[in-house]
Amino acid sequence: MPEECILLAHGDGGALTHRLVQEIFLRHFDHPALRDLTDAALLHLPEGRLAMTTDTFVVKPLFFPGGDIGKLAVAGTVNDLAVSGARPLYLTAAFILEEGFPLADLEQVVASLARTAREAGVAVVAGDTKVVERGCGDGVYINTTGAGVVPAGRDLGYHRIMPGDAVIVNGTIGDHGLAILSKRAGIEFDTPVESDCAPMNGLTDMLLERFAEAVRFMRDPTRGGVATTLNEVAQSTGLNIILEEQALPVREEVQGAAELLGLDPLYLANEGKVLIVAAPEAVEEILTTLRRHPLGLNAAAIGRVEAGTGVGRGPGQGAGQRTGQGSGQGAGRGRVFLRTPLGGHRIVDMLAGDPLPRIC
Amino acid sequence: MPEECILLAHGDGGALTHRLVQEIFLRHFDHPALRDLTDAALLHLPEGRLAMTTDTFVVKPLFFPGGDIGKLAVAGTVNDLAVSGARPLYLTAAFILEEGFPLADLEQVVASLARTAREAGVAVVAGDTKVVERGCGDGVYINTTGAGVVPAGRDLGYHRIMPGDAVIVNGTIGDHGLAILSKRAGIEFDTPVESDCAPMNGLTDMLLERFAEAVRFMRDPTRGGVATTLNEVAQSTGLNIILEEQALPVREEVQGAAELLGLDPLYLANEGKVLIVAAPEAVEEILTTLRRHPLGLNAAAIGRVEAGTGVGRGPGQGAGQRTGQGSGQGAGRGRVFLRTPLGGHRIVDMLAGDPLPRIC
Repeated sequence: MPEECILLAHGDGGALTHRLVQEIFLRHFDHPALRDLTDAALLHLPEGRLAMTTDTFVVKPLFFPGGDIGKLAVAGTVNDLAVSGARPLYLTAAFILEEGFPLADLEQVVASLARTAREAGVAVVAGDTKVVERGCGDGVYINTTGAGVVPAGRDLGYHRIMPGDAVIVNGTIGDHGLAILSKRAGIEFDTPVESDCAPMNGLTDMLLERFAEAVRFMRDPTRGGVATTLNEVAQSTGLNIILEEQALPVREEVQGAAELLGLDPLYLANEGKVLIVAAPEAVEEILTTLRRHPLGLNAAAIGRVEAGTGVGRGPGQGAGQRTGQGSGQGAGRGRVFLRTPLGGHRIVDMLAGDPLPRIC
Repeated sequence: MPEECILLAHGDGGALTHRLVQEIFLRHFDHPALRDLTDAALLHLPEGRLAMTTDTFVVKPLFFPGGDIGKLAVAGTVNDLAVSGARPLYLTAAFILEEGFPLADLEQVVASLARTAREAGVAVVAGDTKVVERGCGDGVYINTTGAGVVPAGRDLGYHRIMPGDAVIVNGTIGDHGLAILSKRAGIEFDTPVESDCAPMNGLTDMLLERFAEAVRFMRDPTRGGVATTLNEVAQSTGLNIILEEQALPVREEVQGAAELLGLDPLYLANEGKVLIVAAPEAVEEILTTLRRHPLGLNAAAIGRVEAGTGVGRGPGQGAGQRTGQGSGQGAGRGRVFLRTPLGGHRIVDMLAGDPLPRIC
């Protein structure tokens, strides 16, 4: 039966489009703003600054251990708001469907997206569907755009990061990237590696309510991993970041599979992790708080911020040598170093070279 | 040179992604919220209800007479906010790029998007870029999501539409759809048909400032055209809409080409048109006001709203007969009729059947 798959006519704005919207989207997304099917959702926004972010998801495969593109589409956007200090409130969801995509798969994705949105306490308030011809897409791509509010008194940003600050992560790194890449490579594990994909707004909100002053900056290390995210911090602040190799929480199976695939967990994407730069005196209390939360059980302090030049022999030498391994950006400015158990330092550059496509 | 095209590595979040963002996106989009490249834009929102809408653009070809996908991506989303009574303020822009897409084309699209946003007075405040493999996309797809504010005192909606109201359009219909389809079909005209693609927030805001009470409802007839949009109105209100065939503003060359292609301008997409349902006593003044605006020169009253059953012989019969031509939805509820110059009525159904894909 042709109607068990997406047809081009599902995207032409006519009768089939309406049926798709009614029978799949509206059945899973229930919000007063959606029911009228008007052009824009009209919403109440509490006091505070408006926060907005957008993300398109093209992950391959669509279903992977620990999640699927629908769950990811909520987690990714909710987390971008959360790490900015915002309380996520509203999501829009826009789908590009490929002709021939099974309606059953679409429904599974939509149900997962709706469930994750409910868990995160955000409402899907507007949507869009487009259909492209077979061979012009890849099943389904989803854009989610999020809006939230930053309550008064919250101020996170590069400008608050200082030498001496600690770098904390709420758990093991590389899980999402490894889950995707090993599924793609057809690698089977005794203990399957699952994506960490999860909305973190509950965790970040709890943290900011308790440590508004001590938490300087947060960022979720997605594409490009912890290495790339911390390079962005180093370049934007002009400060160095020294990671302790021994302190990095990496699952044993992730470490093993990464070695097998020739990958470094520092560059693998995470979808349920947040890097927190915090005042050193609050680190222990922050770690204790994080570890009481389901998404923070393996929280760890993984490094520290140092002045940009001449601090510590290793880093100072590294920056001075300009080893040429870098991407060319940020030379002479802040850099990221990894301190090995033997006390050596190696430069951790931004991801450059082998691309890891379609990871989110 | 490989770097003249999009590579997979442009999408991996590493060094090439950063260069793309710096050298193309940030060069064209200049907003304080973008410069920091943090996860979410933090924005000021004036008093009023928040309006949000999302739209993905997959138009083919990317460049067409009267516009391109960049211009369209602003116009489409700005217009969805505008017809809801909102003042559009912020846009997010998310790109899905196909490996091999020429950077020069990307830059042209981004420049056009930025220029149209400036003209519309909206700021692009957040963005995202993903790259998919050759054969998993089609050059570039763009999602724009818009946020705006509905000033106090504005109330548009189905609930305000009453029998006796007039239906107005701000100009000729079918121009966008015809421009796309004829370009696709390789048809050349003496006078090329151009898309009407344009942000209408200036026009709608002027109208709502002057006629807050008389304007009951607005909607932009994009995919599915005037016929489908008015069917949505009829179905949602339970009221009939009677269009006057002779009053429909259609360019001569659009009418001719539509006949050639076997299409009806009533079903062709518009990207710079708004359908306005208004109190009958204000129609003349609204038309005069519209015609003074560059986007309203050919404004016309094209029909009226009537009670759902038994009003007028033609429509009453039509609804009673259940001719079976319809999509099955809305039978026995509000319908749309076209009154021909000879006084006959024919049912105008929602678009069903031949799909017109990738029109926006």
